[in-house]
Amino acid sequence: MATDTRLKEQLPDLTERIVATYSEVGTINHLGHTKLPSYEAVIEVCRDLQEIIYPGYGRRQNLHLANVAYHVGDLIDGLHDKLTLQFARSFRHEYEGHADEQPDLDDKDFEARAQQKAIEFLHRLPDLRVVLADDVQAAYDGDPAAKSLDEIIFCYPGVEAVTIYRLAHELYRLGVPFIPRMMSEWAHSKTGIDIHPGAMIGRSIFIDHGTGVVIGETCEIGDRVKLYQGVTLGALSFPKDEHGRVIRGHKRHPTIEGDVIVYANATILGGATVIGHHSIVGSSVWLTRSVAPYTLVSMEKPSLRYKETDSPGPSELEGNYQI
Amino acid sequence: MATDTRLKEQLPDLTERIVATYSEVGTINHLGHTKLPSYEAVIEVCRDLQEIIYPGYGRRQNLHLANVAYHVGDLIDGLHDKLTLQFARSFRHEYEGHADEQPDLDDKDFEARAQQKAIEFLHRLPDLRVVLADDVQAAYDGDPAAKSLDEIIFCYPGVEAVTIYRLAHELYRLGVPFIPRMMSEWAHSKTGIDIHPGAMIGRSIFIDHGTGVVIGETCEIGDRVKLYQGVTLGALSFPKDEHGRVIRGHKRHPTIEGDVIVYANATILGGATVIGHHSIVGSSVWLTRSVAPYTLVSMEKPSLRYKETDSPGPSELEGNYQI
Amino acid sequence: MATDTRLKEQLPDLTERIVATYSEVGTINHLGHTKLPSYEAVIEVCRDLQEIIYPGYGRRQNLHLANVAYHVGDLIDGLHDKLTLQFARSFRHEYEGHADEQPDLDDKDFEARAQQKAIEFLHRLPDLRVVLADDVQAAYDGDPAAKSLDEIIFCYPGVEAVTIYRLAHELYRLGVPFIPRMMSEWAHSKTGIDIHPGAMIGRSIFIDHGTGVVIGETCEIGDRVKLYQGVTLGALSFPKDEHGRVIRGHKRHPTIEGDVIVYANATILGGATVIGHHSIVGSSVWLTRSVAPYTLVSMEKPSLRYKETDSPGPSELEGNYQI
Repeated sequence: MATDTRLKEQLPDLTERIVATYSEVGTINHLGHTKLPSYEAVIEVCRDLQEIIYPGYGRRQNLHLANVAYHVGDLIDGLHDKLTLQFARSFRHEYEGHADEQPDLDDKDFEARAQQKAIEFLHRLPDLRVVLADDVQAAYDGDPAAKSLDEIIFCYPGVEAVTIYRLAHELYRLGVPFIPRMMSEWAHSKTGIDIHPGAMIGRSIFIDHGTGVVIGETCEIGDRVKLYQGVTLGALSFPKDEHGRVIRGHKRHPTIEGDVIVYANATILGGATVIGHHSIVGSSVWLTRSVAPYTLVSMEKPSLRYKETDSPGPSELEGNYQI
Repeated sequence: MATDTRLKEQLPDLTERIVATYSEVGTINHLGHTKLPSYEAVIEVCRDLQEIIYPGYGRRQNLHLANVAYHVGDLIDGLHDKLTLQFARSFRHEYEGHADEQPDLDDKDFEARAQQKAIEFLHRLPDLRVVLADDVQAAYDGDPAAKSLDEIIFCYPGVEAVTIYRLAHELYRLGVPFIPRMMSEWAHSKTGIDIHPGAMIGRSIFIDHGTGVVIGETCEIGDRVKLYQGVTLGALSFPKDEHGRVIRGHKRHPTIEGDVIVYANATILGGATVIGHHSIVGSSVWLTRSVAPYTLVSMEKPSLRYKETDSPGPSELEGNYQI
Repeated sequence: MATDTRLKEQLPDLTERIVATYSEVGTINHLGHTKLPSYEAVIEVCRDLQEIIYPGYGRRQNLHLANVAYHVGDLIDGLHDKLTLQFARSFRHEYEGHADEQPDLDDKDFEARAQQKAIEFLHRLPDLRVVLADDVQAAYDGDPAAKSLDEIIFCYPGVEAVTIYRLAHELYRLGVPFIPRMMSEWAHSKTGIDIHPGAMIGRSIFIDHGTGVVIGETCEIGDRVKLYQGVTLGALSFPKDEHGRVIRGHKRHPTIEGDVIVYANATILGGATVIGHHSIVGSSVWLTRSVAPYTLVSMEKPSLRYKETDSPGPSELEGNYQI
């Protein structure tokens, strides 16, 4: 490539200016600290867990009851080490964030705590499989387009997002910092469904299509709830402390009781908002207060107008009609 | 890593408990069956097809009319084998789902049927290119931000989703099970646009931005239709059989006639709903009944209120104002 | 695989028919031209830039102020070459699109211009880091669910989309064709957030969750603006020229003044639409005209109806109730 080497001579100076900003603007770099959890390692962990929960659908084919134990045993053994390493990093990272408030700890302490949590987490997998089997069944029962349970496991982003959520939620309950959110953001980027690991979700949930769904940290959702794409279960407003800083940790997101259906692009906001069981919330509804059980909530009917019938087609119409 | 080996001794027992759930909860594992189609192989097939339809934009550069035949011939030859293998797996999988209703078949029967369908599918590519060229042109004509057709092919998720849809729809029409949905979910995860392979879509469709668009299995869409992000063409309600099970297979999604424009986040529901040609449906409209041709459908104007003018800024406002 | 070789004999003829369409339908292939920018190379460039802006979070761990200069210097040196190569391709491609209107140019001219732009761009990185640090802080201050700045950088798609936007916007301002849109579409496919590189966005923007957000090419956004998922800042209508072709290049998208909050799935349209500072636009609002500062815009309250209390559950209800 015929580039001008004199121009390239500016690069060392430019590098120096960039490095200088690492001291001047230290909030968005992570230098001189211990290692953070690795995003790639967290994704690998998620994929291993999917392989254990849904064996035979993923990377490894030709599994049967006689050989699956070897495959799963191998995955569990590897997960024990991967989880221990990543958990130890996340505990150490959290500790350094509040080192002043805490006793002195060394690497062995973090690893011991991490291994303990890793094993506790792995022990929850058998029960999680039972819960997820109900979620898969709920998707099949709820969608006439579904041809088989295999199609649900292979092709339903809602099931993938709920699977990663239920795994991340267990880590959240175990007090593992940081990693549950990395897992949920991986699922979010794959599916468009953003479920905070802190949310509490009952049995047999079905999220259909799912792109744009947001379920906030302090949501409480009952059993057999059905959500469609674009549904937001969000915060209404954030009380501030005397310094104008948002107060963290109180319930900010709604409660959805059992057997509720929320249609596409509806928005339900507020920690005090309770949607009573067996209610139906229609498309594009925006709701910020509680409703009783068995309520139907819907928007006003839209208005219709007619255009001149000699209309020359949509492009012209766009130009004339201020929609 | 200083992990406690005694804790690791729990892992074999844990593995056993997980494996036990594969018998207890058999609905979400695929053990002792023949191979399923491979998701990775289906993605590879999609990429090969994109390379054939839009040569010169993808992995291979410096193509010209004198050498492109070698490149395409090679891709077609490979696709023949890949498609035959994956189709055979999907036919066999479907067969095992209803083995009782069907005559005995062996692997050769599935492969012969698969190869036949693979060749039929490949023969449809020349006509598909003509149809897709109109889709690309419609995107360019419909978006003032587009600078060139190359930008459309490179940077427009709507065109990518429609390309994969038109390919998957041909497989759907050929009766290939399972794989069309895997293709459409791959496109969904990349683009946020969820088009069921069963939908019937006319010429010169343009889906702009596209994130959150859902087009259901039994939709019928005319020519020169324009859809914006977040538009749902969905089902209204699902008639149940006497056992309360959803009845599958009838028309559940709307019909959109030619030259219709549907703006962002509008939701149109129901198998009996027909949007007459040259109509415009405004943003966030929720529509569950038919409208005549040349209709403009829009929401009521929103309400405005004014805040005290000494307002201290948005964060405080959020706290005070229950939006 | 037991495939019928006689059937395969159709493939050469099929290949010929496909290749024939490259001449018949020449608009969607790129044959006999010089190389286009490579999408893979553009993604690699984006990842290198993220590594420079947020060192220590990405691929390379254990960085500290004593060794980070080597890492960054190496990345900058590589970026100089990658950017020069890709810019040269995009300039040449644009030139061939309007060769008639321009003087004769050869490869060296394109490379010299490309290198100049590459260096100008790299010189803007130090200031961009300062701007992005404010965006990260705005996300932390705006979301009570955020536990640390690290979590923002790791797990907030809005921050990733804004980072890629600010980089692409600099290239847009430098007149580099084609590549800014490739960058923004990469971010769109990862985050569901579609920000056109031409948009003008002030300091400390926060896009929460973000899936489905669309910010059009001619938007102007002030400081400290907060947007939620599904918000569209779009075009209202496209004036056509006498041939019915869309007129390109004038302001088609709204202006959002400082300290405005726009809630989930709101749609604001039109180049003449100005949302006054400190205003709040509620969920699912559809707005096509200007509002004064300190305005609260919200939808009418939705209507509520009650169902018979002996309601048999949601699936039946769906069947009976036309939502």
